[in-house]
Amino acid sequence: MQKKKIVLAYSGGLDTTYCAVYLSKVENYEVHAVTINTGAFDEKEIEILEEKALQCGAASYACIDVRKEYYDDCIKYLIYGNVLKNGTYPLSVSAERAVQAKSIAEYAIQLGIHTIAHGSTGAGNDQVRFDMIFNHLLPNVEIITPIRDQKLSREAEIEFLKAHGVSFNFEKAVYSINKGLWGTSVGGKETLTSHQNLPEEAWPTPVSVTESIDIILGFEAGELILVNGESFEHPSVAIEYLQQLAQPFGIGRHIHVGDTIIGIKGRVGFEAAAPELIIKAHHLLEKHTLTKWQLFWKEQLSSWYGNWLHEGQMMDPTMRDIEAFLTNTQKTVSGEVHITLHPYRYELNGIESPYDLMSSKFGSYGEMNNGWSGEDVKGFTKIFGNQTSIYHQVTKGLIHEN
Amino acid sequence: MQKKKIVLAYSGGLDTTYCAVYLSKVENYEVHAVTINTGAFDEKEIEILEEKALQCGAASYACIDVRKEYYDDCIKYLIYGNVLKNGTYPLSVSAERAVQAKSIAEYAIQLGIHTIAHGSTGAGNDQVRFDMIFNHLLPNVEIITPIRDQKLSREAEIEFLKAHGVSFNFEKAVYSINKGLWGTSVGGKETLTSHQNLPEEAWPTPVSVTESIDIILGFEAGELILVNGESFEHPSVAIEYLQQLAQPFGIGRHIHVGDTIIGIKGRVGFEAAAPELIIKAHHLLEKHTLTKWQLFWKEQLSSWYGNWLHEGQMMDPTMRDIEAFLTNTQKTVSGEVHITLHPYRYELNGIESPYDLMSSKFGSYGEMNNGWSGEDVKGFTKIFGNQTSIYHQVTKGLIHEN
Amino acid sequence: MQKKKIVLAYSGGLDTTYCAVYLSKVENYEVHAVTINTGAFDEKEIEILEEKALQCGAASYACIDVRKEYYDDCIKYLIYGNVLKNGTYPLSVSAERAVQAKSIAEYAIQLGIHTIAHGSTGAGNDQVRFDMIFNHLLPNVEIITPIRDQKLSREAEIEFLKAHGVSFNFEKAVYSINKGLWGTSVGGKETLTSHQNLPEEAWPTPVSVTESIDIILGFEAGELILVNGESFEHPSVAIEYLQQLAQPFGIGRHIHVGDTIIGIKGRVGFEAAAPELIIKAHHLLEKHTLTKWQLFWKEQLSSWYGNWLHEGQMMDPTMRDIEAFLTNTQKTVSGEVHITLHPYRYELNGIESPYDLMSSKFGSYGEMNNGWSGEDVKGFTKIFGNQTSIYHQVTKGLIHEN
Amino acid sequence: MQKKKIVLAYSGGLDTTYCAVYLSKVENYEVHAVTINTGAFDEKEIEILEEKALQCGAASYACIDVRKEYYDDCIKYLIYGNVLKNGTYPLSVSAERAVQAKSIAEYAIQLGIHTIAHGSTGAGNDQVRFDMIFNHLLPNVEIITPIRDQKLSREAEIEFLKAHGVSFNFEKAVYSINKGLWGTSVGGKETLTSHQNLPEEAWPTPVSVTESIDIILGFEAGELILVNGESFEHPSVAIEYLQQLAQPFGIGRHIHVGDTIIGIKGRVGFEAAAPELIIKAHHLLEKHTLTKWQLFWKEQLSSWYGNWLHEGQMMDPTMRDIEAFLTNTQKTVSGEVHITLHPYRYELNGIESPYDLMSSKFGSYGEMNNGWSGEDVKGFTKIFGNQTSIYHQVTKGLIHEN
Repeated sequence: MQKKKIVLAYSGGLDTTYCAVYLSKVENYEVHAVTINTGAFDEKEIEILEEKALQCGAASYACIDVRKEYYDDCIKYLIYGNVLKNGTYPLSVSAERAVQAKSIAEYAIQLGIHTIAHGSTGAGNDQVRFDMIFNHLLPNVEIITPIRDQKLSREAEIEFLKAHGVSFNFEKAVYSINKGLWGTSVGGKETLTSHQNLPEEAWPTPVSVTESIDIILGFEAGELILVNGESFEHPSVAIEYLQQLAQPFGIGRHIHVGDTIIGIKGRVGFEAAAPELIIKAHHLLEKHTLTKWQLFWKEQLSSWYGNWLHEGQMMDPTMRDIEAFLTNTQKTVSGEVHITLHPYRYELNGIESPYDLMSSKFGSYGEMNNGWSGEDVKGFTKIFGNQTSIYHQVTKGLIHEN
Repeated sequence: MQKKKIVLAYSGGLDTTYCAVYLSKVENYEVHAVTINTGAFDEKEIEILEEKALQCGAASYACIDVRKEYYDDCIKYLIYGNVLKNGTYPLSVSAERAVQAKSIAEYAIQLGIHTIAHGSTGAGNDQVRFDMIFNHLLPNVEIITPIRDQKLSREAEIEFLKAHGVSFNFEKAVYSINKGLWGTSVGGKETLTSHQNLPEEAWPTPVSVTESIDIILGFEAGELILVNGESFEHPSVAIEYLQQLAQPFGIGRHIHVGDTIIGIKGRVGFEAAAPELIIKAHHLLEKHTLTKWQLFWKEQLSSWYGNWLHEGQMMDPTMRDIEAFLTNTQKTVSGEVHITLHPYRYELNGIESPYDLMSSKFGSYGEMNNGWSGEDVKGFTKIFGNQTSIYHQVTKGLIHEN
Repeated sequence: MQKKKIVLAYSGGLDTTYCAVYLSKVENYEVHAVTINTGAFDEKEIEILEEKALQCGAASYACIDVRKEYYDDCIKYLIYGNVLKNGTYPLSVSAERAVQAKSIAEYAIQLGIHTIAHGSTGAGNDQVRFDMIFNHLLPNVEIITPIRDQKLSREAEIEFLKAHGVSFNFEKAVYSINKGLWGTSVGGKETLTSHQNLPEEAWPTPVSVTESIDIILGFEAGELILVNGESFEHPSVAIEYLQQLAQPFGIGRHIHVGDTIIGIKGRVGFEAAAPELIIKAHHLLEKHTLTKWQLFWKEQLSSWYGNWLHEGQMMDPTMRDIEAFLTNTQKTVSGEVHITLHPYRYELNGIESPYDLMSSKFGSYGEMNNGWSGEDVKGFTKIFGNQTSIYHQVTKGLIHEN
Repeated sequence: MQKKKIVLAYSGGLDTTYCAVYLSKVENYEVHAVTINTGAFDEKEIEILEEKALQCGAASYACIDVRKEYYDDCIKYLIYGNVLKNGTYPLSVSAERAVQAKSIAEYAIQLGIHTIAHGSTGAGNDQVRFDMIFNHLLPNVEIITPIRDQKLSREAEIEFLKAHGVSFNFEKAVYSINKGLWGTSVGGKETLTSHQNLPEEAWPTPVSVTESIDIILGFEAGELILVNGESFEHPSVAIEYLQQLAQPFGIGRHIHVGDTIIGIKGRVGFEAAAPELIIKAHHLLEKHTLTKWQLFWKEQLSSWYGNWLHEGQMMDPTMRDIEAFLTNTQKTVSGEVHITLHPYRYELNGIESPYDLMSSKFGSYGEMNNGWSGEDVKGFTKIFGNQTSIYHQVTKGLIHEN
């Protein structure tokens, strides 16, 4: 009799290792393990992942590098929208999960397998993102989640693995780390409280730089294409280059507090030097090149867009509509942004752009003006305030204003 | 024959000095000079202002301290709304002008005078704010703006003053400074370009602190009432106290780039340690105590509110409606925020609040959960993603998704 | 041994009759049946409900008239916000369920009973609204839903009832009708398709009027207080009076198509003459008395408010915040609205209000103007269009506009 | 010496006739009269316009038929967005003016003339729209507005024309009519009050139909392409065809009350059978084919889009961004809408669409469900209401909810 086939989202951690062994050895599945690499793993690490997966009983292993797709389908729009959830968080993990789920579903379709397993617990956001996106892309998919269903403790999982001859080192780290192209999250201990900050040693990248440096980021139509004059094969590579350069300054370290999909509040640290610098630089460039109402509506839509992506709703067609909006706004978002990096902080010095609406050709604020006069502004002011004037004359004495 | 009476918005600078002399000596007005103190002047400075005003021909002088009203009518809501225009600027000057205009109009009403002069030029935002709010509060007010109307150069003004026996020191500073309760702006030289940052010496408050310190801000229903456990007569005093404490760290220095009321882009530096710390601390507290949609709608409304205030539209009744909304959201925004100040930067360490929705009583994110199960989340996910699932099944093969 | 106590939301229909019998006779509960009257039942009908409930084994029966609370807590804000979901539906059923759920929970608290049963199936919105609001108000409530859990057919329910000696007439009507203070829904047959309209005979209230009449609705601060000059004990009574008067004209009949909470699209007919007339009249009055941005923001917020109420989220504190906003906007929404009712349609003729901003004192549109000149408008226009002018000059030749 | 050249926006009414004569005979301009036909004039009328223009001294006359461009650049998006200002007005006149201004500017550019005259008074919206759009497209344009500048009465204009040998019939009509592709406005007498409706005889198209008929509108990707199965060269022709068919039913007659650009409230009647039917049919189709959040954001953006277009800001790039959003939403808005036209009213009977999300394949509301169970909904509800549950448990007893 032929074995049932299953695709397993595999990261090499304790939970997905358990899944691999459990599914292949207990449930007797033909397990096709797949790692979707959104920036967490280098070649060496991938080799080890493969080796381990096969040891755990996987019938096949694949690691799919989706860094470019991740950028093209997701990060790009987060930059266009200057998306920082609650003013802080670049959605490092949330964005990644959406893209991983999509890639896993596509891999399953490619293999002709309609059963997918993932290692999510019943306590977090990821289960929602994975389940939902699998459902969106594979209508009658069967989803198997051993960790969530069996509610096993860490110890029980390790016990089980030992019993099945798998004894990798699964020492529990103090902090749980999730690394990716758009930032690395750090959770545990202090982040489980509301009042404690992460200590210096909790951050994955130590601060190793003591001198300040000047850098220049070059954007074209909203996309990062140059770092200090250097160009790259793809913006995702520019992001990695900038991250390498800037993270040792200790920039972009924050704690995100926000609403999980399941309704409770969550708190997590993250380091994301490149995402923060790119978004802040991009936003500054936009302040010079976009009109007032472009800025206003970008903000309104992007805030919702970020939240909805965070909640795993990447496949809602509304997202495509907002992406069309955002893309259209970026036509003139080109130019250079000058930044100084200091240990633990940075300064945005200014921008240069052919589309700069602050062009002195049209008057410098407060200094002189071409093209209109004080008389014009008087007339403007009268009309601009007309309705409120009428309102106050009409209501005078009739209502009591607080 | 009785002299015509006029109220003059007087700050003691070159422009309003010119106005005082011109209106009293050339136009033969009975000039009632008034300074609305929103935090720029201490007692000593006010005495000098009075002396100078009378020397310039003013028939009377008054300085009205409106710091409390400024907070109560305006700053309070900017805190409730976490208003940072374009993500950066606490509206230090814009907010101040609105309140000053209102106070001047009220002073004119009190004196029974229907003519008001101000020293604005034809090049900036202030003319719009003053004219408009005077019109809103004094329907048939006559507004006299000698500087705007006569388009005089600095030199011509000084010449005129000398000719009328007034020879105060009006040496042109490199930077134009505007100080107030909600921040101090710094404009000139570099801020007239798009690409240059202000040099260290341009900032009014030198960085004089080298050691880090921990502070605690205490909020009650959205208002700052405690700094390091110390209470204050009024939140405006708490702001001044915090500003005194924090500005020597060099915190809250930024360059704002934004849309002026008259359509051009403007750029200005500002230092606003207290406003930035208060808003960021307040926002963090809200992330713990407000629901997802409270946070969402606060952001949408506050963004518009800040822009509209910036444009001088403080008297539009829509502003009162949004204030009612914001006030209602603040019921649970109480607690302490822990911050560490370092030279040039700060860290938000965390909060403590009886209203903290992250209370571990209801489950800690990713760790455990009470009150619901993995099964519940499975059901949730199915329904939560239902419409998008249907969408993809219905449209499959019918439309080409980009 | 003491019986377990349960509160049963009871409407006298087949499903809640089944629940009463099943819970009392099979599950051996002490059943406290309660009907929350939001306008569906008159005194006579309530007597019959009581009698039936007791026959079905209920230990007690109560009918709570919440029409005033329904108005005060809910309908009032739907009027303030001119809420018509998807431009059409006054939320006749959705609003009612929220208020009913709240009242049932309060009744349970009053009786000290922490178990509640309702007759919802697993196919609709009501189960979500009931369950969720019970959970919000009674944290550890146990909720029993026999119909949803047992997935019984209509026939099986009737069979069961007969077997337990209950043989009321439960003939299946072609249309399922839900009557209430804020409109009556009509579902079945045609509404289960996308393309068919309800036939004349499906509408609960036949069109019995052939002559047109003029009516006047009087509002004070947004609330309906007068109909044709007649005043009422409470606005809920005014609504009933107007409904009585207007429904025989066949006004306010529509089919609502919209998103259910569970993600599928739903379609239902409704007749709601009073809600439609009140909302349209109120909106017209607002167009005369509110400023441009009050109208804009009311619309944005109300659209979301209506959707969120529809989804049963009445207890989210965001709803209270928006209600505070809406209430504040209504200060000047007072005056009379003149309407002509014709068979099947109506015309809004106009309004009279002391707060009318169209007051000819300040200029009539296109006819004359006081207080400003063509010159003022020229200046206004120059400044109003300034940024877009600059944008086009800066970008000319640089970007290709579609 | 060569005459100065000027382009005159010419409609053949009293004001533009005055302009033609005054500019050519008094100001000695070489007047190039141009009529931008957005649906007001047929061939016969255009011949008369030309004849008159030349009689008035115009050096050349052109009539440019822009109905297709009007649809492509403007009306299309008003349909996509279901734009009815203040819930009623399809922007019949506002939309037209924007397109006319753009076409006039393009004509001037084509002729190499940088001076444009229009006949607007100083009392209305049109002056703003024309001036602003001319400025946007022709940076240093000189704009001449004799009627606004000379503040002439009707009688004085007629007097002047007679003195220059022009004595067309300019009898003042009771109502001022503006006809175009997207509706015909009717202003005067009653519309200058707040409380009077227009009488039957004021409406340009008499109600001449007494029998009801069924019609079917066919949409593809949001555009009207079929009326009763008949296809058309261009959607603008479909609109005209439908208008011809439906206006004799007296459908789409309303009075718009709204905010003029200059701050006062304005009131105007309009008849727009085709626009109303198309928008309502299109919206109904969208309720079936778009997701909840597509509908939500379309509404939010379209409301602002309509207002901004109304205010003449068509050239703001934000408008292009929103158009990109709207266009993207329309991919699935295809299908047929069934309507019954009655004298003075209509009924939307339903739709048929391959993209109908109400497809019974995925469950019919309240009847049955495939793909999820009552258990799923229970889980959904627990999680969906989780945050509000926590909120109420945390705040219980701490705050007083109103």
